[in-house]
Amino acid sequence: MSNVFVLGHKNPDTDSICSAISYAYLKNQLGMDAEPIRLGDVNNETAFALQKFGFDQPRLVERVSEEVSQVILVDHNERQQSAVDIADVQVIEVVDHHRIANFETTDPLYFRAEPVGCTTTILLKLFKENAVEVPANIAGLMLSAIISDSLLFKSPTCTEQDVQAARELAEMAGVDAAEYGLAMLKAGADLSNKTLEDLMSLDSKEFEAGGHRFEVAQVNAIDVAEVTSRQKEIEVLMNEKIARKGLDLFVFVVTDILNNDSTAIVLGSRSGIIEGAFKSSVVDNRVLLPGVVSRKKQIIPVITEALS
Amino acid sequence: MSNVFVLGHKNPDTDSICSAISYAYLKNQLGMDAEPIRLGDVNNETAFALQKFGFDQPRLVERVSEEVSQVILVDHNERQQSAVDIADVQVIEVVDHHRIANFETTDPLYFRAEPVGCTTTILLKLFKENAVEVPANIAGLMLSAIISDSLLFKSPTCTEQDVQAARELAEMAGVDAAEYGLAMLKAGADLSNKTLEDLMSLDSKEFEAGGHRFEVAQVNAIDVAEVTSRQKEIEVLMNEKIARKGLDLFVFVVTDILNNDSTAIVLGSRSGIIEGAFKSSVVDNRVLLPGVVSRKKQIIPVITEALS
Repeated sequence: MSNVFVLGHKNPDTDSICSAISYAYLKNQLGMDAEPIRLGDVNNETAFALQKFGFDQPRLVERVSEEVSQVILVDHNERQQSAVDIADVQVIEVVDHHRIANFETTDPLYFRAEPVGCTTTILLKLFKENAVEVPANIAGLMLSAIISDSLLFKSPTCTEQDVQAARELAEMAGVDAAEYGLAMLKAGADLSNKTLEDLMSLDSKEFEAGGHRFEVAQVNAIDVAEVTSRQKEIEVLMNEKIARKGLDLFVFVVTDILNNDSTAIVLGSRSGIIEGAFKSSVVDNRVLLPGVVSRKKQIIPVITEALS
Repeated sequence: MSNVFVLGHKNPDTDSICSAISYAYLKNQLGMDAEPIRLGDVNNETAFALQKFGFDQPRLVERVSEEVSQVILVDHNERQQSAVDIADVQVIEVVDHHRIANFETTDPLYFRAEPVGCTTTILLKLFKENAVEVPANIAGLMLSAIISDSLLFKSPTCTEQDVQAARELAEMAGVDAAEYGLAMLKAGADLSNKTLEDLMSLDSKEFEAGGHRFEVAQVNAIDVAEVTSRQKEIEVLMNEKIARKGLDLFVFVVTDILNNDSTAIVLGSRSGIIEGAFKSSVVDNRVLLPGVVSRKKQIIPVITEALS
């Protein structure tokens, strides 16, 4: 039984899973007894990366406080994105690259957030600062996270630091970033074995702003029309989720990973803000967002501003 | 006119002032147009350090949004300890060593908090990570901050990293840390030119916990009895402050810097929690706290826990 869990956010993406594994490895090298865990199912893209570099999925743990009293958060800090019982354990460290909100501690802690495109770009610094070598397979996972979060360096969240880190990690891992990356993204955008319920929850995050609760789900696709052709069924599921969770707004974003645009379906009592916020026409609850691929940089701040 | 202000907390202590000057220097070396400012009067201890190393006081600015749109916070993150109009500017960076609370951003930012004894211990890392040399006079300020926050390495907040950083900085600054440090602490503990109003506000910080607002003021003294002999007058001022600010608890801590104990005067509707929280008898609104010198580590968590 480990003393400390290292965990990414709910509905884990490739960064959350790979950062948890990589940072737990680093902490173990530094003498901590840390175990990476996950809060939900691993998606196709992440499964592809784990298999490529020879890792099993981290263990699924729903209530962390039943096993440990201390946790390390990677790739998130907002409590509603974390374990359901996060208030019952001590957060001893955070390594993240998102906005900071809904986070509070009683004691000082190690909190390292940087405005870069991916958590593992920060983790590479931490390996270096602690003079711990990155094994080839861990480097492969860290590279996968950067490719995932940056959509192969094309997202506006991607910084020069991410590109440089990916270059170093690709060399350590012995893979061609562009070739491997496209294969990984395509594995993630293969929606053929997914139900609509899956699409709704695979990579969905809740936020609060101006007293309103909103959620933004995002899926990557190669054929966006394949998804949007089922809009009516999707809306039924969205409305169910809105009612169940008491959301004021639910945005379902389908991102075209080849053309770098997104199409969003918007529902909820506050959905009227979308048209003004994004300066785009909402027709039949649907809006095209040209050039928008980043939830964090191009969607959340815009909605937060509009709701506040 | 600078583009970015670097600021420590209200009622600035030596760490807040010296960190603002030192980090603004580093950011300027890295190409940012940054100016250190202060949110309040400089205390005797800080004035001694500034004079020793040849610095003027940073400029006093009360409303930061009238001059800049972006700020960097050092030595604090809680909004009630920051500029009154902090909500009107963008916080682009935080370097701190306190608990995280009442802090929220719309966008990702650089947030570097570490559980060490002093902000400048983290700043020394940042100078190194950015390969910028620390000039002797800046090293002197950074050393002063560590000595101040750690009461010459005797506070339980002091870590091995602080001791090591102070050693390096003393060498860079060309001073004997023990000798210089005692002189600086004594300058700070010289209360002869201070009114009781001064003592009440020199180093006072507000907090929230469990829906209650509390404030903890701390002064260092060589002769504690000199202060506590005026308890009745002090209580009048404390009650005024409680009424004016709507506090539920006000704790006035006098720390004996030679013997490393504290005596506290406690007032407010929630002052009944003190006896149980510190397992010490409160007699005539006064309590002796043996071995307690650190507000952050030995007082705030205890009160926060008791109020929550």
